[in-house]
Amino acid sequence: MGNNPQLNANGELQHLLTIEGLPREIVLHILDTAHSFLSVGEREIKKVPLLRGKAIFNLFFEASTRTRTTFEIAAKRLSADVINLNVGTSSQSKGETLLDTVANLSAMHADMFVVRHSQSGAAHLIARHVAPYIHVINAGDGRHAHPTQGLLDMFTIRHYKKEFSSLRVAIVGDVLHSRVARSQIHALTTLGVPEVRVVGPRTLLPSNVSELGVQVFNDMARGLKDVDVVIMLRLQNERMNGALLPSAQEFFKYYGLTPEKLANAKPDAIVMHPGPMNRGIEIESSVADGRQSVILPQVTFGIAVRMAVMAILAGNA
Amino acid sequence: MGNNPQLNANGELQHLLTIEGLPREIVLHILDTAHSFLSVGEREIKKVPLLRGKAIFNLFFEASTRTRTTFEIAAKRLSADVINLNVGTSSQSKGETLLDTVANLSAMHADMFVVRHSQSGAAHLIARHVAPYIHVINAGDGRHAHPTQGLLDMFTIRHYKKEFSSLRVAIVGDVLHSRVARSQIHALTTLGVPEVRVVGPRTLLPSNVSELGVQVFNDMARGLKDVDVVIMLRLQNERMNGALLPSAQEFFKYYGLTPEKLANAKPDAIVMHPGPMNRGIEIESSVADGRQSVILPQVTFGIAVRMAVMAILAGNA
Amino acid sequence: MGNNPQLNANGELQHLLTIEGLPREIVLHILDTAHSFLSVGEREIKKVPLLRGKAIFNLFFEASTRTRTTFEIAAKRLSADVINLNVGTSSQSKGETLLDTVANLSAMHADMFVVRHSQSGAAHLIARHVAPYIHVINAGDGRHAHPTQGLLDMFTIRHYKKEFSSLRVAIVGDVLHSRVARSQIHALTTLGVPEVRVVGPRTLLPSNVSELGVQVFNDMARGLKDVDVVIMLRLQNERMNGALLPSAQEFFKYYGLTPEKLANAKPDAIVMHPGPMNRGIEIESSVADGRQSVILPQVTFGIAVRMAVMAILAGNA
Repeated sequence: MGNNPQLNANGELQHLLTIEGLPREIVLHILDTAHSFLSVGEREIKKVPLLRGKAIFNLFFEASTRTRTTFEIAAKRLSADVINLNVGTSSQSKGETLLDTVANLSAMHADMFVVRHSQSGAAHLIARHVAPYIHVINAGDGRHAHPTQGLLDMFTIRHYKKEFSSLRVAIVGDVLHSRVARSQIHALTTLGVPEVRVVGPRTLLPSNVSELGVQVFNDMARGLKDVDVVIMLRLQNERMNGALLPSAQEFFKYYGLTPEKLANAKPDAIVMHPGPMNRGIEIESSVADGRQSVILPQVTFGIAVRMAVMAILAGNA
Repeated sequence: MGNNPQLNANGELQHLLTIEGLPREIVLHILDTAHSFLSVGEREIKKVPLLRGKAIFNLFFEASTRTRTTFEIAAKRLSADVINLNVGTSSQSKGETLLDTVANLSAMHADMFVVRHSQSGAAHLIARHVAPYIHVINAGDGRHAHPTQGLLDMFTIRHYKKEFSSLRVAIVGDVLHSRVARSQIHALTTLGVPEVRVVGPRTLLPSNVSELGVQVFNDMARGLKDVDVVIMLRLQNERMNGALLPSAQEFFKYYGLTPEKLANAKPDAIVMHPGPMNRGIEIESSVADGRQSVILPQVTFGIAVRMAVMAILAGNA
Repeated sequence: MGNNPQLNANGELQHLLTIEGLPREIVLHILDTAHSFLSVGEREIKKVPLLRGKAIFNLFFEASTRTRTTFEIAAKRLSADVINLNVGTSSQSKGETLLDTVANLSAMHADMFVVRHSQSGAAHLIARHVAPYIHVINAGDGRHAHPTQGLLDMFTIRHYKKEFSSLRVAIVGDVLHSRVARSQIHALTTLGVPEVRVVGPRTLLPSNVSELGVQVFNDMARGLKDVDVVIMLRLQNERMNGALLPSAQEFFKYYGLTPEKLANAKPDAIVMHPGPMNRGIEIESSVADGRQSVILPQVTFGIAVRMAVMAILAGNA
């Protein structure tokens, strides 16, 4: 498996755990494959037989109906059998260890695990212990990574902006707690975006964020100045009235995306959000539903990207 | 989409939201189509490929295992892919609006939403906002409507009584809080049943119920006199000891269906109940399990009716 | 149906409720059929069309993600449609009786019920009331029986030990509360194992256990002496600090399987556990993961055994 735990001996994708360290050609291969799947969702019969007879386990140690649903749809469009496990409420509560749970499911001849876990590194840990014929997809681990979200965001940007080499992209909001932001930054850097900015209050930006090769802005007008892409992050409910943030209203006043603030960006800038949105907190409805918003296309592209990841992994068995 | 939000420009069924205002020929077309599906449930291989590759979302904002199961079975018999979402426990609790949730699921290329919601009008609201290729089926909204239940009840009545034009039908119990009763009354009226009665205590009948074209009875013996069909309603647990009703025992004494009370109806009258039954409260076990009961056939017919609705909607894309 | 509620008039398997009283040739037929299914899990396309169009209901009145998952995978590998019902949280809480719930699901043209219930005898009760074309599989009822676990354990023993007629088998731990132990004892006896031992503290062994034809040991070293198979039972969390057991530490000291205790068994003895394991309580990790452990193969074999049971039942319609 070499140094990169995501690649097999041939340098092909064995697991999708993080975008950090993923070779550029693999990222592009996923985006290209996703492009070829995009039309499946628009067909009369939205199915291809690529994963027929494969068993895909949605292993959600942390509840997330939306993300679980996108993986379930993607797997069913590939004709796989899907088993949904909300593990938080079962074996884990019976005192079994994470690795024993996974070892048991592996022994049922699983082909793929889609793993969501509140602890950073959970998907890596699982990937290190599964049999060589099993593939692991990280569907979000703690504050660490959410690579399929990062990839669908890249797909969206490429769809609207064609190429990455001349873009200015701003990621706005609670970068500190966001695995989505981390995956986006790695993806944008890998794809050669020359200027990636993070915008937010000092309390919600990681202290070492500039080490990731991004520019840091605390002022929204300056942060959005002349950007091509605005990516708003979700503000977790539990942050809204905590020590890091005076209030949701205060956040909206300074960092909520309004038409006025968006006017600082390029006129053809696109607006993205990973969802679910807090309207009136991160983003004003007129922007969320406005002509520059590509928030719903992100969802559509997300299915195609997840199909692509699954199909590529299954092909690298 | 003309005045009737359920019909498309050609006057065909686009959504099934309520039986109120549904043209008689569409109701009959559903019943006839259901008849043709009835045999599928008795085959060795209980499947037809009509909806292969379609994605049907069971969107249950209010939990109902039984109703969800009937739709899931109906969809799987049509070879559709089914995605179950208990939305009450997910995105909604994350602060996302109902319409954002639905917009997101639509962007995943859903073909049909089966919607259950505690608020009257929820399915209509969703139907007004989905893309034109998406169909919405109301699986119960607040106290408003439960059209597939009404339709399966009509299927049951036609199965046993052959025609509607000479029937006397009594609906007994908590009409006030019952979306089922409302859908039944509209269906019976639409199909030309000349005499529809509601029977119950004053506190559990809507004050304006006679405006729906029904006769009102507070006395069970008179209400059941010479009827062809007795439809018992479920008494919600939360009503049983509330302000509207002294006690479950009191209710059973006056309105619970016993052999003695049923003797007022015609000798070949059929007894129906939408389930789940409270034995000993709405209905005595000897009647529920007796020769006049068609309560279990209602369930069987319910699958065929839901298959019919889904197949018709998919055909009107 | 004769005296044995599990057999049809031809003496074939109609339901699988318990191993007690099951004819030896039927047990062997299940094991042989399972053997033929073992390779399906290793194929590129892990599916056979034997149960296509059949509707299998997982009726779990008691939550168990692991057991439910094994049945779901087995059914999907046979191409059946699977409906998962966590009944604890639905109709039952609406006041409907167990038999009404089952009658309703039967009316939806179910083919098979997989039933898990906290009350002993629940699966038998259901089997007595379903229509003749419906098959019931007991997936664990109270402290009574868990026949598919017992069968997969026999499959495992036969896989490693080839024949039953000369074996010495020890079942260790909380036999008193274990439906698994009861099913294992009946299976071992039926298959002609000459020496079956139960090992545990007096408080966790049934007072009449010797009537089942087993030898009773309270000392672990003596109980494991020269055995071919060691079956560890799971210690329920709720027993650990109760009246029957001083503490988990105390239990581990006397009955937890360590390399030292295991050294009393034959050098080629196999170690089994139904899972989920409490490492450091019933079993030391070095043994659980050691060369004599066949705990994970048990899981793999469990899928094949459940496929076999379903396929045999469906063939005896």
